[in-house]
Amino acid sequence: MKRPHLVVLGGGFAGIELGLALKKAEIDITIIDRQNHHLFQPLLYQVASAGLAAPEIAHPIRSIFADYDNVTVIMDEVRDIDVEGKKVTTADDAFDFDYLAIGLGVKTGYFGNDEWAKKSLGLKTLNDATEMRRNVLMAFEKAEMSDDPEERKRLMTIAIVGGGPTGVELAGAFAELACHVLIDDFRNINTDEAKIVLVEAAPRLLTMYDEDLSAYTKTKLEKMGVEVRLDAPVQEVGDKFLKLGNETISAENIVWAAGVEASKLTERLGVPLDKGGRIIVEKDLSLPGHSHIFAMGDIAHCIDQAEKRVPGLCPAAMQMGKHVAKVIEYDLKKLAAGKAPEYDVRPQFRYFNKGSMATIGRSAAVASSMGLKFTGFVAWLMWLFIHLLFLVGFRNKIAVLIQWFYAYVRYRRGARIITGVNIFREN
Amino acid sequence: MKRPHLVVLGGGFAGIELGLALKKAEIDITIIDRQNHHLFQPLLYQVASAGLAAPEIAHPIRSIFADYDNVTVIMDEVRDIDVEGKKVTTADDAFDFDYLAIGLGVKTGYFGNDEWAKKSLGLKTLNDATEMRRNVLMAFEKAEMSDDPEERKRLMTIAIVGGGPTGVELAGAFAELACHVLIDDFRNINTDEAKIVLVEAAPRLLTMYDEDLSAYTKTKLEKMGVEVRLDAPVQEVGDKFLKLGNETISAENIVWAAGVEASKLTERLGVPLDKGGRIIVEKDLSLPGHSHIFAMGDIAHCIDQAEKRVPGLCPAAMQMGKHVAKVIEYDLKKLAAGKAPEYDVRPQFRYFNKGSMATIGRSAAVASSMGLKFTGFVAWLMWLFIHLLFLVGFRNKIAVLIQWFYAYVRYRRGARIITGVNIFREN
Repeated sequence: MKRPHLVVLGGGFAGIELGLALKKAEIDITIIDRQNHHLFQPLLYQVASAGLAAPEIAHPIRSIFADYDNVTVIMDEVRDIDVEGKKVTTADDAFDFDYLAIGLGVKTGYFGNDEWAKKSLGLKTLNDATEMRRNVLMAFEKAEMSDDPEERKRLMTIAIVGGGPTGVELAGAFAELACHVLIDDFRNINTDEAKIVLVEAAPRLLTMYDEDLSAYTKTKLEKMGVEVRLDAPVQEVGDKFLKLGNETISAENIVWAAGVEASKLTERLGVPLDKGGRIIVEKDLSLPGHSHIFAMGDIAHCIDQAEKRVPGLCPAAMQMGKHVAKVIEYDLKKLAAGKAPEYDVRPQFRYFNKGSMATIGRSAAVASSMGLKFTGFVAWLMWLFIHLLFLVGFRNKIAVLIQWFYAYVRYRRGARIITGVNIFREN
Repeated sequence: MKRPHLVVLGGGFAGIELGLALKKAEIDITIIDRQNHHLFQPLLYQVASAGLAAPEIAHPIRSIFADYDNVTVIMDEVRDIDVEGKKVTTADDAFDFDYLAIGLGVKTGYFGNDEWAKKSLGLKTLNDATEMRRNVLMAFEKAEMSDDPEERKRLMTIAIVGGGPTGVELAGAFAELACHVLIDDFRNINTDEAKIVLVEAAPRLLTMYDEDLSAYTKTKLEKMGVEVRLDAPVQEVGDKFLKLGNETISAENIVWAAGVEASKLTERLGVPLDKGGRIIVEKDLSLPGHSHIFAMGDIAHCIDQAEKRVPGLCPAAMQMGKHVAKVIEYDLKKLAAGKAPEYDVRPQFRYFNKGSMATIGRSAAVASSMGLKFTGFVAWLMWLFIHLLFLVGFRNKIAVLIQWFYAYVRYRRGARIITGVNIFREN
């Protein structure tokens, strides 16, 4: 009997876990991603703020599956999914599938204001991160050269929209960059006069946490010099300015960390989507009416067995990837026994919430796990430990640990390199 | 009395050493570089071959001089040097100087065939290195996708022009990448069928070394699978092909490591240049007829006190930077004593040749020092030790050491990340 073919779209946390879990399964697997690397997204803000080098938080997908004879990795971009014809079309090729697992993640979303994308920086890919690093570091260089106080002020302002974990982490990291890392390096500007503004439409930061953790986060950020603006929905993202109500904030760098949405590709599936374009899945993570197609990770809108909405977090994506593997193995077992899989009695997904955490800065974080709440140094150590543990690959763990230790002790940043600047290319 | 102003052009090895040596001198220093970082160029080939991340071999110039109150760092590009008016013009500004030290280095040179630049990759900057890494890794990705045997062969061929240290190091590193690092990662191609061709016009590799070391290098590279072509001057660099005599080599990636030349800027100085555009300096490293202007590092053509031509190597650049500091201090001392500097009795530069070395691959290198010659593992350990010693900054040393150790033990490459690829951006 020909082995079934599973096509996995996306080498993110869900896709990788799915592939890893099926090492010994009687199934051929093709993983398609438009990048050659799996990205450890929770640390992307560290690349953006010059703490880590890009390769330190990325791992080639091929090398993860080097020993998996049943796994083929394709670097290509998905263009279309033919649900009925069981075929995925990419930029360069086409792949027939028996099973399909969609784990394409989400991209930065602007609530319909797509023109804001050009005027602000999102943070979803390594390119986003190195671009943000370049722009922020270049703004300080330009400020050093400028004689105009107004221009300097604008150059030294970073406005961050969105008070979720990404916004909080970036605000803290940029405040430390300006006030500690760069402090002795310039002669004409005082980098601690840099203005980091964190803007949130809701009445508090980190709305998924308890209120006292939100309050701690705000106090801590303010102590670090961050201006926190709550109840402040953005009216307009303009060219180097941000409009909040009647107020205009001039900022050389505007970071958009306020929303995400699924790829437009989901619209072609003919299945129900939520308003962010996410695929609303069944309890076994399959698409309604398509038992052979699954969605997992951030692109899936899942109400789990416990009737709870599964959050768009790494651990959830990893658990979903493992669950899809479990469901496929259930089917394969039935088929191997000569029976038809009973789709109704497939295992149902249940998200196990180990807790969640966000880091604010040097020795400060918030964490909430199993009904317990942590703040400060203890939470930061927990955060450090867990993130190192999850990083793919030995090398990265050690190298990252050393850089953090070094940054902690010496207030240095190892990756303060401006590359790809074309400003001088006129001649 | 107003302190004199020294303008240093270029934050390379010469410029950095000059600045460091004048920490306590009664002089104001402005260092101008178009990059924000000092680059450890001897390891650039490691970034190009995915062994190291870009930030690991670069260090912000500002941060090197953070504690030097008399040093100002400007990120800008030099546009003109007015020798008589004692003024340097940059893209954004202009700087009057009392002393000027030109340490702008050299760029990739094509012996007048400037159109070859677009068809091959040079290796002088971090952007060159990450571009080379991207193109080489992408070629393997494309080969994996291709069904055409001829196209595959072309995609898996890297032609390197120039059998000097850079060419040898790149050839060895790419051979290891293909035959060891990537070997298990692909399903449709055998990466050890990749063809690395090293082309040299002279009858041997590494012509600056003794013949037995050249012979060892050739044998070692051939054992690693590199095709070494001697006495093979390049007729033409075309679009994905190279012409040697009547033979045409199809290669997706062509690396040009065959020559360097000085910036066109030197032509405006009105002083004698050599055929590479280098400034022919006096024994004190000043320009003929311009005692206040010095050239140092690769941009200087220097016959030293011992009547020997100083080579274009890092240690020479560092020594020249220190020497310029010594000459300026000599002048300052005279001036402080109320006397006029006697230009004729200034200290003369003498290059101290500690030796030179090139690495070929895993545990293989050649070194020549004080009349002694080394090959193999011993030379490689020497190379490793000396390069780590010279790397700027504690963090880099440790992180780089760990990565090399890891790469050595596990045959892995930490930086195999393809970034900035636009091939999928059509939609």
